[in-house]
Amino acid sequence: MAHKTTNKIFTPDIERISIQGSSPLINVPFNKINLSNGDSVLVSTVEGPDVNAKTLPKVSESYAPYVIDGDARKVKKTILERAKEGEITPHMEYVAIRESYKNSDDMPFTPENVREEIAKGTAVIPANINHTECEPMIIGKHFSVKVNANIGASSLSSGFDEEIKKLRLSLKFGADTVMDLSTGIDDLGGLRSAILRASPVPIGTVPVYEALDRAHGDVNLLTWELFRDTVIDQARQGVDYFTIHAGLLKDLLPHAAKRILGIVSRGGSIMASAMMRSDSENMAYEHFDELIEICHDYDVALSLGDGLRPGCISDACDKAQYGELENIGKLAKRCFDAGVQCFIEGPGHVPMNKVYENQELQEKFCNKAPFYTLGPLVTDIAPGYDHITSAIGGSMIASFGTAMLCYVTPAEHLALPTEQDVKTGLITYKLAAHSADLAKNLPGAKIRDDAMALARADFRWYDQFALSLDPQNAYDVWRAQMPEECANSHEPAFCSMCGPRFCPIRLNRKLQAKYNAK
Amino acid sequence: MAHKTTNKIFTPDIERISIQGSSPLINVPFNKINLSNGDSVLVSTVEGPDVNAKTLPKVSESYAPYVIDGDARKVKKTILERAKEGEITPHMEYVAIRESYKNSDDMPFTPENVREEIAKGTAVIPANINHTECEPMIIGKHFSVKVNANIGASSLSSGFDEEIKKLRLSLKFGADTVMDLSTGIDDLGGLRSAILRASPVPIGTVPVYEALDRAHGDVNLLTWELFRDTVIDQARQGVDYFTIHAGLLKDLLPHAAKRILGIVSRGGSIMASAMMRSDSENMAYEHFDELIEICHDYDVALSLGDGLRPGCISDACDKAQYGELENIGKLAKRCFDAGVQCFIEGPGHVPMNKVYENQELQEKFCNKAPFYTLGPLVTDIAPGYDHITSAIGGSMIASFGTAMLCYVTPAEHLALPTEQDVKTGLITYKLAAHSADLAKNLPGAKIRDDAMALARADFRWYDQFALSLDPQNAYDVWRAQMPEECANSHEPAFCSMCGPRFCPIRLNRKLQAKYNAK
Repeated sequence: MAHKTTNKIFTPDIERISIQGSSPLINVPFNKINLSNGDSVLVSTVEGPDVNAKTLPKVSESYAPYVIDGDARKVKKTILERAKEGEITPHMEYVAIRESYKNSDDMPFTPENVREEIAKGTAVIPANINHTECEPMIIGKHFSVKVNANIGASSLSSGFDEEIKKLRLSLKFGADTVMDLSTGIDDLGGLRSAILRASPVPIGTVPVYEALDRAHGDVNLLTWELFRDTVIDQARQGVDYFTIHAGLLKDLLPHAAKRILGIVSRGGSIMASAMMRSDSENMAYEHFDELIEICHDYDVALSLGDGLRPGCISDACDKAQYGELENIGKLAKRCFDAGVQCFIEGPGHVPMNKVYENQELQEKFCNKAPFYTLGPLVTDIAPGYDHITSAIGGSMIASFGTAMLCYVTPAEHLALPTEQDVKTGLITYKLAAHSADLAKNLPGAKIRDDAMALARADFRWYDQFALSLDPQNAYDVWRAQMPEECANSHEPAFCSMCGPRFCPIRLNRKLQAKYNAK
Repeated sequence: MAHKTTNKIFTPDIERISIQGSSPLINVPFNKINLSNGDSVLVSTVEGPDVNAKTLPKVSESYAPYVIDGDARKVKKTILERAKEGEITPHMEYVAIRESYKNSDDMPFTPENVREEIAKGTAVIPANINHTECEPMIIGKHFSVKVNANIGASSLSSGFDEEIKKLRLSLKFGADTVMDLSTGIDDLGGLRSAILRASPVPIGTVPVYEALDRAHGDVNLLTWELFRDTVIDQARQGVDYFTIHAGLLKDLLPHAAKRILGIVSRGGSIMASAMMRSDSENMAYEHFDELIEICHDYDVALSLGDGLRPGCISDACDKAQYGELENIGKLAKRCFDAGVQCFIEGPGHVPMNKVYENQELQEKFCNKAPFYTLGPLVTDIAPGYDHITSAIGGSMIASFGTAMLCYVTPAEHLALPTEQDVKTGLITYKLAAHSADLAKNLPGAKIRDDAMALARADFRWYDQFALSLDPQNAYDVWRAQMPEECANSHEPAFCSMCGPRFCPIRLNRKLQAKYNAK
């Protein structure tokens, strides 16, 4: 097979392969991009609704010993506990293959490397025992940077089918985890179940959204019991990680009040409302041990939410933000000690000169638990282009060690993302994450870049499209300007940039012939 | 007047004002964005085809004593020479007002500050005595980051009118300088003249493009005399700065030959072809004193071109690139000593972890002459999205001190930019440059961001659009999802992101009422 074009649709020659580990359960899928010069490049993927994918046996077996609790399963020991005890679980071998074979032939990551990182709390594999469709995914500084995509229905827009479509689109364009932020619809549980069943990547939620819905949107009715029951129901359903805003303590509220934009985290502002209503402390903080226990039962990871993330440049890096981060660091220690995996959410809006400081303080306060940031956006003045303002901050902080980036779409600050926005946001974040992998000198990260450079040197246009993060778009842009005879050839000898007359790339052949022969 | 919408066209309330200096000649235009709460924000602009602009008297007088040379003018002393002698020219006062009043009411930059930077060679004001339409623009590390847009006709596409349209579009979206890279059309001189007459910003060219055209595209016919005459003709016409690839010396060619992508600079590869043809040294290097003399006559600035800029991540930061940079540093000294302003072109493709090193070495080798980079792109695998891959590297290097960024459009590596590409590229680079201004703590840079944050806190949606880099787009994205009654109000109390139910922004009002009253 070779790359094909039919009716303006460009189809790269991508083969779905899998690499098997020490047991048939461990079957790690990859996309193999076959190039016209005989080379190929492996790209990690998931068993998902990829149009080019051959069918692989589903990773449907659970990786952990469990007990049955009603219609759900409970673990005896979490992944973290097993790692601490020196056990290499199937998850660990799975992600070692996934990270190693991504772009290279050797195995730079061993299962033992993975176990060590998990055992130290510097990496996590969110994998609820009841999300059996989930293929293990590792999030940690020393591994490839991951990208999360947010989806979610709301009372104003978007239905059931549309969300599943967004999930599939997210998977197609490489989302490593997906958060379901649905609120305000009738059957939140049904939608979440459909998303879990369709998702081979970890699914995260913000349980307080559903808790507020159960309280009919009235913060006065939002009790701890209602919140707790929501968390239990979602954990039993199979959610892989929960965002919980337990570090936003009462004494930080006056600092937040001094800001231009106060609290912009939706979850954070719900918690703050509940606290203000009765001058009480944060209920998630007060009952944190109970939350940890629920997470332990189903091996849910905690994503410790930054309810006080800054919403504008002016509010960045203030006492509210860093005070909460310090609180979160203490909570992270409690999770770790209790055998529950956790990672830490971060900003937000941060000027470029403060991005490094954010990573540095997070590592200091949180004992190097993985950092998971929303951008950060490096300016406030470009709504409509905030996938870009945030990719700048996101790629920077990821190059300093942030393990996962939450994507931001062009709709940020203006509207809910459309399907096109989801696609644009994801591709932007995949390029940001990959750029950080290159900056971290991750083994093999450069292989795809080098293949692209070689394809450019050889005028292998179709290989260039195939190696792109968005092959169809690259083909479309090129095709719009090339004369018919070139578009029909797979290797036109020139392009529209310089035209047929003088071409630097052709000169290079003479240059190499002259000097490299010597 | 207030912001208006008519037939889905959003028109922000922008007033054209001007601030006068010590003489009526010095009349610096600004856009004053009037907000609905009575505040306003000043944004620097040029007298150009801005649809919202009131007509100002043209800055049509020359700022320098001159002699007539045929139909063109020659300076006796260049701006650099006058600065070295301690003279504050009208250019210097003009840019001091432009940089100071941009975003703030005080005057952080004085004409004397500007003179000092020029006299040290750390900033330049490209202003050919024969480009009388040109409004002075300063390019230097300690001033706001500038953005260059490339336009240019070629044999394959784009005509005369289309290029003027691209120029106008570039000006509308904030290009601070424009390079005309036209080649392969019949009347290159006529097109350039039309561009100069229509442009209030400095115009740059790569004269060897036209020289090769005059040699009928045959490098064998490209003589020094032909190259020199082209440079003289363009200098007399009024081009404000020339890219000359004089640092690409013969002994670097074997290093370039070792790369995956060899030479990707079109100008660089033309020079290399000419050198390889007869095993000769770079003609621009050999005749550099003559080039300096021509530039001196018309006060043209030299943009010392990096003919060996890396064309892929793998080729970045190698002996070819840094060897040329060292050569360029020596040429920069010769320009400076001869009283000719110069700045330095830089990469290209550079992984994020090497971006700082590029700025550092440039300052070391080139005695802090202003740096002017193309991106750099931080990965090779995202054709179609290279405005973003390059904005990441561009904003980073600008935050470290690069004075001007050459924009990259989504068409990079695939095709010539369309009008839409020009717009997207420019807005992307304006946000990158602005983010760097914020990171540099430039006086007043944050005013527009703070105004945006306040507009968000107050639900002043129309003010948010008006403060955006692309108001119409922001309005369109927002409008597509908001219910009719909200779109018709200037201050709907909620937005599509959270819906009418629970809104973090409304919570902030309670938060501030509770804590800030104390």
